[in-house]
Amino acid sequence: MQSALFIGRFQPFHNGHLDIVKKILKDNEKIIITVGSAEKNFLPQNPLTAGERFQLIEAALKEAKIPADKFCIIPVRNINNFALWVKHINMYIPPYTKIYTGSEIVKACYEGQHHEKGPTIVQVEREIQISATKIREAIMNDNDWEDLVPKAVANLLKKWEISRRIKTIHGTMDLTKYNNLC
Amino acid sequence: MQSALFIGRFQPFHNGHLDIVKKILKDNEKIIITVGSAEKNFLPQNPLTAGERFQLIEAALKEAKIPADKFCIIPVRNINNFALWVKHINMYIPPYTKIYTGSEIVKACYEGQHHEKGPTIVQVEREIQISATKIREAIMNDNDWEDLVPKAVANLLKKWEISRRIKTIHGTMDLTKYNNLC
Amino acid sequence: MQSALFIGRFQPFHNGHLDIVKKILKDNEKIIITVGSAEKNFLPQNPLTAGERFQLIEAALKEAKIPADKFCIIPVRNINNFALWVKHINMYIPPYTKIYTGSEIVKACYEGQHHEKGPTIVQVEREIQISATKIREAIMNDNDWEDLVPKAVANLLKKWEISRRIKTIHGTMDLTKYNNLC
Amino acid sequence: MQSALFIGRFQPFHNGHLDIVKKILKDNEKIIITVGSAEKNFLPQNPLTAGERFQLIEAALKEAKIPADKFCIIPVRNINNFALWVKHINMYIPPYTKIYTGSEIVKACYEGQHHEKGPTIVQVEREIQISATKIREAIMNDNDWEDLVPKAVANLLKKWEISRRIKTIHGTMDLTKYNNLC
Amino acid sequence: MQSALFIGRFQPFHNGHLDIVKKILKDNEKIIITVGSAEKNFLPQNPLTAGERFQLIEAALKEAKIPADKFCIIPVRNINNFALWVKHINMYIPPYTKIYTGSEIVKACYEGQHHEKGPTIVQVEREIQISATKIREAIMNDNDWEDLVPKAVANLLKKWEISRRIKTIHGTMDLTKYNNLC
Amino acid sequence: MQSALFIGRFQPFHNGHLDIVKKILKDNEKIIITVGSAEKNFLPQNPLTAGERFQLIEAALKEAKIPADKFCIIPVRNINNFALWVKHINMYIPPYTKIYTGSEIVKACYEGQHHEKGPTIVQVEREIQISATKIREAIMNDNDWEDLVPKAVANLLKKWEISRRIKTIHGTMDLTKYNNLC
Repeated sequence: MQSALFIGRFQPFHNGHLDIVKKILKDNEKIIITVGSAEKNFLPQNPLTAGERFQLIEAALKEAKIPADKFCIIPVRNINNFALWVKHINMYIPPYTKIYTGSEIVKACYEGQHHEKGPTIVQVEREIQISATKIREAIMNDNDWEDLVPKAVANLLKKWEISRRIKTIHGTMDLTKYNNLC
Repeated sequence: MQSALFIGRFQPFHNGHLDIVKKILKDNEKIIITVGSAEKNFLPQNPLTAGERFQLIEAALKEAKIPADKFCIIPVRNINNFALWVKHINMYIPPYTKIYTGSEIVKACYEGQHHEKGPTIVQVEREIQISATKIREAIMNDNDWEDLVPKAVANLLKKWEISRRIKTIHGTMDLTKYNNLC
Repeated sequence: MQSALFIGRFQPFHNGHLDIVKKILKDNEKIIITVGSAEKNFLPQNPLTAGERFQLIEAALKEAKIPADKFCIIPVRNINNFALWVKHINMYIPPYTKIYTGSEIVKACYEGQHHEKGPTIVQVEREIQISATKIREAIMNDNDWEDLVPKAVANLLKKWEISRRIKTIHGTMDLTKYNNLC
Repeated sequence: MQSALFIGRFQPFHNGHLDIVKKILKDNEKIIITVGSAEKNFLPQNPLTAGERFQLIEAALKEAKIPADKFCIIPVRNINNFALWVKHINMYIPPYTKIYTGSEIVKACYEGQHHEKGPTIVQVEREIQISATKIREAIMNDNDWEDLVPKAVANLLKKWEISRRIKTIHGTMDLTKYNNLC
Repeated sequence: MQSALFIGRFQPFHNGHLDIVKKILKDNEKIIITVGSAEKNFLPQNPLTAGERFQLIEAALKEAKIPADKFCIIPVRNINNFALWVKHINMYIPPYTKIYTGSEIVKACYEGQHHEKGPTIVQVEREIQISATKIREAIMNDNDWEDLVPKAVANLLKKWEISRRIKTIHGTMDLTKYNNLC
Repeated sequence: MQSALFIGRFQPFHNGHLDIVKKILKDNEKIIITVGSAEKNFLPQNPLTAGERFQLIEAALKEAKIPADKFCIIPVRNINNFALWVKHINMYIPPYTKIYTGSEIVKACYEGQHHEKGPTIVQVEREIQISATKIREAIMNDNDWEDLVPKAVANLLKKWEISRRIKTIHGTMDLTKYNNLC
């Protein structure tokens, strides 16, 4: 079964992500959705745990009636080393023939492996202009955000009282202070 | 959807594992298969990468005609700290109401969380007496092993020349020497 | 013996901290003073080692005639993971029935353990408005700071030539450069 | 106040340790008891957390009527690097003029700092021949062990059902398997 | 053979560095060039790997006709701990009697070892005012930079298409986003 | 300049190593000697620091009249991950066209990179049958060992009182106990 890779942090998974997933599935038999920075959570830019992000994606894809055998969701921890990054990812996931990305860095990482027969790099064109950063800010400021994510995602985030969590972790710290929590 | 957790290293996934998966699915709506020690690979006791183990399990469950929406497979890295272990696992996976295990340690870890309303711990009874350790030894010694694993697993392991890999990483080292490879 | 927990970085321990310690001891038999970020030192926001902070607190409490059997001082290293934070702290210290804190984050961490019978969270009201950040800045800029800390703390800091240390680590770097020292 | 350093893992603290503490306090104004390998717990050779070991030592010294201002107890994590070891310890504890040890390695570490004016190294003579290893084995095998530790230590260990813990972590693993728990 | 130590990150090695190397060799038999932050690469402030920096320095010194037995180049990883820093460096390099530095921090680190007979600290006077930061910015902005580095360095950097690399890693991220790449 | 890679831990560098270095230099313009497990020292199997091993190799090659421009010596820390190992090494060293090794594992690591145009792997034939393990044992047991290493190496090891060091770190521990030193 031919697979394509789609990597993101999904903090949270939104309509733009869902749109890309659908497009990838038009051209590929299966999609491997890799949840990056899996080890990060309860941080202003990474409020959700990997387990919560897994649930959000699974719920959104089910709601969108994407069959369960067309995707898998795999959390992978971050490493701060571009030279090793592609090898690191490849240790944790099944093989793939294409990588979809809009990130110049991810492209550079794959191109840096120039001696290898690597996957085809496909430029992601985001037709739906939504950013997870904007969604977190909207949640923070009590602005509207629920239309920016799949209904199943909105329901779970509200059930988890994400608004309270984001305000708590935002209101009392910047990154430096956080590093000194204890 | 109510879920049950099943944790293992799956080095490799074998018929005993598959039998347990089927039993768990008789009593639960969904199974979360957690691939432990995900960061380990190319070691005598951990020859396969997490990505390879993912493929083996997925192939075996497909072959067994278990529908894709009845299971998910999630790699989780090890931490050597029992006091934090349950919390660590829970960061990476969706919620579950039962944990199936045959390990006294895993039971102790969950019971150690005694102030929490945790999942029900279910004793795994292995009817099919197969151990992954024995399979690795059989591969090592060119003894028969293929009947001990699902056909799809055997096919992939042979395609990956697992016999050569296990012999290479076994033949030249004990664990101490390995630690000093470079 | 019933104990209450008080966590801080104590860079340095000042009159506001001492005031809180005294208040806690009015309502509790014993106080566990946890010195957070114990592994950090010789950094602009963390100039003192854990051992030095231990000395400062011990000297201040002795000077304040707080009996040695009413408190203990325990250094604990930081972890950047809220989901594991409470469990991490609890591995290093004796049991306690109350946690005194003014930090929304620490409160959130304890409340996040909602399935557990945890300690009572008590809001710390700082009557004496002193911040360690302001003290470090005053030392840096040769402004008055000695009245903001217990006399025993001032004496030790001067003996250690803290002014010279803070100027040295401040004057030559921002955090980014520091990370690249070697 | 002149201090002496005494380092151990105290798994658990026993009568031999207590005897040494008393001897050190005959010749020194204060003792700094450093609880080594503080990060290890629920392991066959390290069953107790640092927090539990803190409680055991504090209870034993109180029972022995050693005044609280004559000692402090400081947990310090391990580092596997002799060349840095003394510096590492010194970051976490107040200054001391003597180090009591029976370990050739610890002596070698201090002597390796030969360019420094370090503490005096004092050879510990164990008059009471008790080893923590033997105590853990006795607990494991339901042999007598309670007379080997201070009464207060025995009471706490029994309250914590240490026998059950040691059997659980022993019975199901050797160190290698443990490393592969998940 | 009497040696002097010169530490830098050399991102990249430039004419100012080369000038210092020559001056050090007038007063010392040999120079140990330590490439700091060896583990960092493909980052805006650290674009080059340690291996690449090794090549640049070797090529520059060969071009400058400095005999190969007058220098050695040793990569050392960073540690974020001033109290341990000098000991850490000393584990990786041969002995030296002088340390050349213009950094107040490095001086403070060596002076902090005041109980030791350490190397003489020599203030580096940069006659050639070039900074690696400025060179990276010039490469980024397509300004002239080639005259600021030895010819051999310029040739290698162009061969490696450093301009493209710096633009890629700069253009798509700030440090925070980078940390969340995956 | 065409280079060949030779990797070892060199605990210590001996006549067998020197013989291989000479042979490699017959067929290659330059040799890159990588000192593996650079971060390990004062351990029974790794008694010497990376800096000491650097000195031994440099002294031996000088004594053997190998010109300084024919070799470089680069310490590299270990990583316990075969899948990343080759990439890891390559980050720290200049390019090379051949890798000399007698280790099946190292061969397997390079072959595992099969999609890449990697270096030629050359089987090392040890004509001089000396093992560093045997040398450490001989030092430990006061047996003859000095003829097994270059004279310059023997002189330095004796000057450093290596016999005393090896006995100290051996006599008081096995690896497990060592891990629990503190």
